[in-house]
Amino acid sequence: MAQLTLNITMSLDGFIAGPNQTLDEPLGEGGERLHEWLFPLASFRERHGLGGGGETGTDDDVVKENLAATGAVVMGRRMFSGGAGPWEDDPNADGWWGDDPPFHVPVFILTNHARKTVDKQGGTSFTFVTGGIEAALDQARAAAGDKDVSLAGGAEVVQEYLKAGLLEELQIHVVPLLLGDGVSLFDSLGGDPVKLDATRVIESPAVTHLRFRVPR
Amino acid sequence: MAQLTLNITMSLDGFIAGPNQTLDEPLGEGGERLHEWLFPLASFRERHGLGGGGETGTDDDVVKENLAATGAVVMGRRMFSGGAGPWEDDPNADGWWGDDPPFHVPVFILTNHARKTVDKQGGTSFTFVTGGIEAALDQARAAAGDKDVSLAGGAEVVQEYLKAGLLEELQIHVVPLLLGDGVSLFDSLGGDPVKLDATRVIESPAVTHLRFRVPR
Repeated sequence: MAQLTLNITMSLDGFIAGPNQTLDEPLGEGGERLHEWLFPLASFRERHGLGGGGETGTDDDVVKENLAATGAVVMGRRMFSGGAGPWEDDPNADGWWGDDPPFHVPVFILTNHARKTVDKQGGTSFTFVTGGIEAALDQARAAAGDKDVSLAGGAEVVQEYLKAGLLEELQIHVVPLLLGDGVSLFDSLGGDPVKLDATRVIESPAVTHLRFRVPR
Repeated sequence: MAQLTLNITMSLDGFIAGPNQTLDEPLGEGGERLHEWLFPLASFRERHGLGGGGETGTDDDVVKENLAATGAVVMGRRMFSGGAGPWEDDPNADGWWGDDPPFHVPVFILTNHARKTVDKQGGTSFTFVTGGIEAALDQARAAAGDKDVSLAGGAEVVQEYLKAGLLEELQIHVVPLLLGDGVSLFDSLGGDPVKLDATRVIESPAVTHLRFRVPR
């Protein structure tokens, strides 16, 4: 069965986005700096339709590996609709992902608002799931086939899946940056401590890729 | 001049101690689990007077390197006097470090209560500095000679030195553990983002040692 994995970029001080996210600045203030390691990569440029070229090497290999392994995506409604704000409750909001989103696989969005599936260009579809995190995971698994289901975020959704014991693998891309403020990935996790198995470390000057398995 | 360095163990979710620190449980609830990687090491056992033996190898080498480089220590008053609590304002509190503390170098404690230097066994002395973080660093540098000054914590003191631009190197020992709650190392850092230089990664199954320099 397709495993549920998380691949996410985090500052050394634990943030996955800056403060004050808006539609115009979906990563929050300073949040772009978190993803600077991604922008020059060949696999990122290709995925986002930015034309050929770009850097290859260690970081690009890690991203390519992740993309190749992903058969479906699960994300929270705020990540779909462009950060927190009044529009997140608009059932017709089209998100900020454009006509050719970078996923290229079926995406399942956790929401309270039922609506029809939207088919985008390039193999991306947005399916809205109102039945909760297990229902979304079930649908994503069915769509992923032999590949993994990738949990895209945001932080609250990651924490929900972690607390439910449904997240099986985490790869945290730690950037050498103290962001100082923003959206904390693990904030308010609570509960009993969870021991992880550290399964791989890959380093580059721009980012350190730490991979963990959640023991059953 | 002696550089100011930080060597500290942190859970993947950013905690350096568990919640509810007391004199009996100075690392807080569950906080011992953070340091499990240290306890079996030969260098830790030797430093804490636990007799010979213990594990050698990657993690032990990292600890030995740090001990050999350290000529003096700076710590906050709560770390000296055993976590937050009423005793931290007791000018006669002797801390929870015992007669033969594990530092074996001069230790400078940030406090508001002037008192005489206490000489302990094994080369450790406790000097109480009421002049602020720069005064403590100056005194520690003078004592450290050619070696480094090691910032022992806690989190608030680390943040103060970071904000003042006085911390020059950080080595974070990231343990594969989601502690869920406790004392967050970088919580409330605020200010402008600080880009670090990632200078070294050393991994073992128990812990990943991430080293950074703070650019001037």
